[in-house]
Amino acid sequence: MAPGTVKKEGQQEAPHSGEAGCIHLSNPHLGKMKEDILYHFDLGTNTHDFPALFGDVKFVCVGGSPWRMKAFTQYIAGELNLGDPKEDITNICAGTDRYAMYKVGPVLAISHGMGIPSISIMLHELIKLLYHSKCTDVTVIRIGTSGGIGIDPGSVVITSQSVSPCFKPEFEQIVLGKTVIRSTELDKDLAQELAQCSEEINEFNTVIGRTMCTLDFYEGQARLDGAICSYTEEEKMQYLKAAYEAGIRNIEMESSVFAAMCNISGLRAAVVCVTLLNRLNGDQISSPHDVLVEYQQRPQKLVGYFIKKRMSQV
Amino acid sequence: MAPGTVKKEGQQEAPHSGEAGCIHLSNPHLGKMKEDILYHFDLGTNTHDFPALFGDVKFVCVGGSPWRMKAFTQYIAGELNLGDPKEDITNICAGTDRYAMYKVGPVLAISHGMGIPSISIMLHELIKLLYHSKCTDVTVIRIGTSGGIGIDPGSVVITSQSVSPCFKPEFEQIVLGKTVIRSTELDKDLAQELAQCSEEINEFNTVIGRTMCTLDFYEGQARLDGAICSYTEEEKMQYLKAAYEAGIRNIEMESSVFAAMCNISGLRAAVVCVTLLNRLNGDQISSPHDVLVEYQQRPQKLVGYFIKKRMSQV
Repeated sequence: MAPGTVKKEGQQEAPHSGEAGCIHLSNPHLGKMKEDILYHFDLGTNTHDFPALFGDVKFVCVGGSPWRMKAFTQYIAGELNLGDPKEDITNICAGTDRYAMYKVGPVLAISHGMGIPSISIMLHELIKLLYHSKCTDVTVIRIGTSGGIGIDPGSVVITSQSVSPCFKPEFEQIVLGKTVIRSTELDKDLAQELAQCSEEINEFNTVIGRTMCTLDFYEGQARLDGAICSYTEEEKMQYLKAAYEAGIRNIEMESSVFAAMCNISGLRAAVVCVTLLNRLNGDQISSPHDVLVEYQQRPQKLVGYFIKKRMSQV
Repeated sequence: MAPGTVKKEGQQEAPHSGEAGCIHLSNPHLGKMKEDILYHFDLGTNTHDFPALFGDVKFVCVGGSPWRMKAFTQYIAGELNLGDPKEDITNICAGTDRYAMYKVGPVLAISHGMGIPSISIMLHELIKLLYHSKCTDVTVIRIGTSGGIGIDPGSVVITSQSVSPCFKPEFEQIVLGKTVIRSTELDKDLAQELAQCSEEINEFNTVIGRTMCTLDFYEGQARLDGAICSYTEEEKMQYLKAAYEAGIRNIEMESSVFAAMCNISGLRAAVVCVTLLNRLNGDQISSPHDVLVEYQQRPQKLVGYFIKKRMSQV
């Protein structure tokens, strides 16, 4: 194909499927490697015993902020009676400052920084980590923050489908200079199960809706308060209202590649983000610190409840 | 324009130019705001005295890793006789874990995480910080790591021009669902001045060349060792050799939006990255830890020398 040609991925590139519940590693080259260094985790197959370290992982929770992922792991330790939530917990990736990783029982928590490229590096190395560890039946959930559209701040959105800034359920990946289009659907049953958990908790508003994923926080999300802005307030509002009409309830910066890569790798996946503001009412995140902290605990509480419920069913 | 239309930015969107050497703020809306919260820095114009804190800044150095930016600031403190390089230094953004920021004399150092979206959020807030602080004659330099093409590991590349994965000197920004194309040229005189500094230091190989900026570290850079790979080794090598033929000497993940945003904002900018490996020889970063540490000090040493030289000329 000529450079710049767009290819839609279909049957010709089905994942290398293994046994049911196993990780699908869509890369025939990896089998030939004597060692695999997961550079951004500072872990390697010749220096670390992956099955011993991670073989029991059933839930992976990822989020932008390292502090939040540490707090989440401590919270989960308490919820699952696997440790004292006030006790310090070891960062498995302490040899690098790119990502932070924590583990408690079957739950692995990893920070991914901000934006598609940052989470995509993490996901490549996570999927290889799960594969090398021979993990089975893994559920991956992104717990994050977002800007809401037409819903009250503090509402939690469970993503039905991640969409592009043109409102299409697609992720464009550039491979050898050519654009490849990948699906951004997420597991419908898992989304319903999470929504059911929120009903049972009954503490905050939760909706299932489409999530728009952008490459920029300011111009890319139609904000008026960045260093660069070439549109009017009317044009901004027109765009955000069109997004609402298209079923979009929140905007963040990682869900599209997260959905696409989990799909290809046979991982059940969900995106659960709290909204820090209603973008139809403004652009700046100006709520008091303690309010924002409580908002950010909501996805953690919801996913913690879900994991606890799942584990009690085993 | 219809959604998806591509617009090339030209004269119709010239920056709001102020006095010579001032920051060009290309956003007419900002003047109407009573407060500006730089959310990801945890700084705000009503809570912090920007001119007092940052008014004397003349050099801003940015890099992916917070640890590296701290070490750089300590190194600069010693070089400029502004402090003990072994002394701890305060993180100005201590209230958040999104970015780390350090200052010593006229030098501000900020981490930007990995990838275009992560550095773009930081740059929006940095440009507004410099504007609110009334800074003049600011030079911004990205010091980073990269994969080399056809040059020895440890070589330093000063970017002449950042190019896309299709080898075009362009950055595509999506604004209200439409693609806007921006120039990724960098300051030629500054690049020459930096190359001259490297000659004077005479400790490592430095070249001026084109830098390819990608949205992904694995498939986006034609690696064979990611979780997903649908091409052969021959196709990979063909792509990398074509990049070399097009004058590309290294690959990283931030230079395009960095060049585009600095251009629009009237900031003199340079990108100085060390290469951790020669991608024509492999994909994994497997050099010993101490070798990689020494490589990563090279851009710091070069930019430290440049700042010291500039300051001695004032």
